[in-house]
Amino acid sequence: MKLNEAFRSLPPNYLFADISKRVGEYQAKNPQAELIRMGIGDVTRPLGPSVVEAFLQGAREQGDPQRFHGYGPEQGYGFLRQAIRGYYASFGVSLAEEDIFVSDGAKSDVGNILDLFGKDNTVLIPDPVYPVYQDTNCMDSRRIVFLNATWENSFLPMPPQEEKADLIYLCSPNNPTGAAYTREQLKEWVDFANRQGAVILFDAAYEAFIQQAEIPRSIFEIEGAETCAIEFCSLSKTAGFTGTRCGYTVVPAALVRDGMSLRQMWLRRQTTKFNGVSYPVQRAAAAVFSPQGQRECRENLKVYQDNARLISQTLAGLGIPFAGGLNSPYLWMRCPFGMDSWTFFQELLTGANLVGTPGSGFGKNGESYLRLTSFNTKEATAEAMRRLRAWMGSRR
Amino acid sequence: MKLNEAFRSLPPNYLFADISKRVGEYQAKNPQAELIRMGIGDVTRPLGPSVVEAFLQGAREQGDPQRFHGYGPEQGYGFLRQAIRGYYASFGVSLAEEDIFVSDGAKSDVGNILDLFGKDNTVLIPDPVYPVYQDTNCMDSRRIVFLNATWENSFLPMPPQEEKADLIYLCSPNNPTGAAYTREQLKEWVDFANRQGAVILFDAAYEAFIQQAEIPRSIFEIEGAETCAIEFCSLSKTAGFTGTRCGYTVVPAALVRDGMSLRQMWLRRQTTKFNGVSYPVQRAAAAVFSPQGQRECRENLKVYQDNARLISQTLAGLGIPFAGGLNSPYLWMRCPFGMDSWTFFQELLTGANLVGTPGSGFGKNGESYLRLTSFNTKEATAEAMRRLRAWMGSRR
Repeated sequence: MKLNEAFRSLPPNYLFADISKRVGEYQAKNPQAELIRMGIGDVTRPLGPSVVEAFLQGAREQGDPQRFHGYGPEQGYGFLRQAIRGYYASFGVSLAEEDIFVSDGAKSDVGNILDLFGKDNTVLIPDPVYPVYQDTNCMDSRRIVFLNATWENSFLPMPPQEEKADLIYLCSPNNPTGAAYTREQLKEWVDFANRQGAVILFDAAYEAFIQQAEIPRSIFEIEGAETCAIEFCSLSKTAGFTGTRCGYTVVPAALVRDGMSLRQMWLRRQTTKFNGVSYPVQRAAAAVFSPQGQRECRENLKVYQDNARLISQTLAGLGIPFAGGLNSPYLWMRCPFGMDSWTFFQELLTGANLVGTPGSGFGKNGESYLRLTSFNTKEATAEAMRRLRAWMGSRR
Repeated sequence: MKLNEAFRSLPPNYLFADISKRVGEYQAKNPQAELIRMGIGDVTRPLGPSVVEAFLQGAREQGDPQRFHGYGPEQGYGFLRQAIRGYYASFGVSLAEEDIFVSDGAKSDVGNILDLFGKDNTVLIPDPVYPVYQDTNCMDSRRIVFLNATWENSFLPMPPQEEKADLIYLCSPNNPTGAAYTREQLKEWVDFANRQGAVILFDAAYEAFIQQAEIPRSIFEIEGAETCAIEFCSLSKTAGFTGTRCGYTVVPAALVRDGMSLRQMWLRRQTTKFNGVSYPVQRAAAAVFSPQGQRECRENLKVYQDNARLISQTLAGLGIPFAGGLNSPYLWMRCPFGMDSWTFFQELLTGANLVGTPGSGFGKNGESYLRLTSFNTKEATAEAMRRLRAWMGSRR
C-alpha cells in the first residue's frame, strides 16, 4: 500500500495550530493573563439580525415534515445562486447562475480545485501569502515558483516575464499583507495568463473590505478574465460566517483548456465528492445579500474598518512601517528593534499579552513582519493599542 | 497547463443527475402525473424536535455577540466528538476523541480521504456499489479490481485470495443491495487486510438500520480492525441529516503505514483543506446522540423499517426475487419479465409513475436489478406498492 509520499515533505504543523499551541501553553502557565487576540483572522461581530432570522426559519423548516429539505443541489440552491448573481451585478459583473458554486467555505474550494489539474504544472505563488496555496500544492508534488512580495514592490508582485506559468494564485486584498491590486495591475496578470494559457486562482475573500474605487472587487471586472480565471469568495469576513460556513466559487463557461470545460469538470468534482451546503445555512447566506442583510454587514464592517484605522494611526505614531489596513482587515507591520517574527510574537505575547501572527508563517519574505487584524472588538483593539504603545515605550 | 486527464475517462453524468433529468423530462411532458420517488436515497422524515431545538439554539448564539462562535476546530467540537464517542460505546466500541473527525458528510470524506494515498495502488471495489468509490478513484487513475457481488454470494463478496489489494471498499449494510456482512465475514476481511497491509475504507452510513445482532454496527467491533480500517459514517440516514449535512470519519491511532500515522495525515489534510462544520449544525448533531435524540431517531427509523417490510411483503407476494430490506433501507429487486435496468426504470416511470434507481448505475452486476428505498412516507409507500401490483397485473 503506497501512501501519498508528499505528506512527508509538508511542515508538520499548520501555522495557526502552532500559534494556538504556544498561546495555550502561555495561558496555562499564566491563567490570570487577559490575552487580546489580534492574530488569527477570525471575526468577532455576530451575524446580523435578518440573517439569524433566515437561519432560524430554515432550521425550523428542517423540523417540519411539510417543509423539510433533504439533499439539495450539490452546486447550491437557486435562491442563493441568484442572490450571489445579484451581488456581483451590484459591482458591474454579469455571471450566469451556472457559473456559481456554493460551498462550505473558500478554504475547501481553494484546496479541492486542484483535483482538476495535472501534477506536471508550474504554480506561481506569492510570498508571503495564505499558507493553504503552498501546502495543497505540496500535497500534489507540483513545482512551485514563488513571487517575491516585498516592501519594494508594495507587496504586489507582477508577472515574471521569464517564467512559464500554469497556475497562478492571486489574493487581493492580500492575506497577510493587506495590499490590493489595482484594475491596471490585474489587467497585466489577466493578459499574462491568457497569453500563456495559465489559470489564475483568484482569492477574493476580503473583497468586502475594499474602499477605493480603483481596486476591483472581482477579477471578473477585468476584460479577458473569463477565459483564464476562477474566483473564490467567502461569507466569512463579509458577513461573519467563519463559524457558520458558506462560500462560493465562480467558474466561467468560457474557461476551457484542451477542449475541456473547467466549469463542467468542477461540477463533476463537486457532484462526486460533495453533497451541498446545509439548507438553513444557505437560507442565512441568501439573507446576507438582501438590502437589509447588506446594511447589517456594512455596520459590522464599519467596526473593523474603524479598528483598522486606529491600528494604522498607532503604528504610524510609533514610527513602525506597515502596509494594509485600508482595503483590508489586515495590517502588516515591520517587527521593531530588528526582531525576527517569532521573537516579536513571543515578546508581544509575554510582554503585552497580545497575540499576533508571525509573518514568517506566510513565507520567507514574511520574516521580520507580524500580521495584526482588525477583527477584534473596538474596546479590545483600543486596549491592544494602549498595550503596544506601553510595550514600545518600555523598550526604548 | 495540464488538466487532470482522468476526467476524460469518467462517465459524463453522475447517476442521480441522469435519473433526475429523465424524471424531469417526463414530468414536464406529463404535468398531471403524481410521481412517487422510491429512487434516490433521500429521507422524508424531518429532524426530531430536540434536534431542531438544539439547532435553533446554536443559530441564535450566532447572532449574540457574547455567545457567537467563529472558526471552530477543523476536526469538530469536543462536545460532538464526545457524543459520537458515547454512541460508539453504546455498541461496545471504545474510541479516543482524537480518532473522530466531524465533517459535512460521509460523501465528502469518502472522496477526500484519497488525498492520503498514492496513485500506484490496487483498489478493490464491490460491484454493484455506491458509484462514488469508483468515480473518485478514476479521477486519480488508480487500478480498480471489481469484486463480484451477485445473487450466488448473497451480494457479499469475500476476499479474493489471488489478488494483491491495497485499498478495499466495503459498504455494510450495502448500498444498493441492502446486504450486510456478519461478524465472521468481516473478520475474514480484516485478517486479509492486515496480512496484506491493505487499508479497508468502511462505509457504515446505514448502520442505524441494523436489526440483527450478528451484524456489526462498526468495523471496529472486529478484532484487528484498528490496524487496517477507516470508517465513514453519517447522520443523513440515521437522523435525517441529508439536507442538514453532518458526518464523521474514524481513523484509529494504530493505523500506521511506512511509519506514517494515517490519523495524523488526515488531520493535516483536514486542517489544510477544510474549516470545520457549521457550529449550529454541530449542536444539532450532538442532540441526535442524547437519549431524547436517539428516541426521536428510532421513531423515524421505525417508519422506514415498516415501509421496508411492506415492500418486502409486496415483492414476495408478486414472486419477485429481491435482497435487502431487513438491516437496510434498500430493497434490491430483480427486474421482472427479463427487462434490463433502464427499460424497467422507464416502464415503471411511465406505466406506474414510480421512480426507482436502475441497478446498472451501480455497476455491471447491477444490470437487471432495480433499487427501491423505504425512505418515502408510509402513505406514498403503500400507494407505490398498489401501483406496482397493478402494473405487474396488467403485464401478465
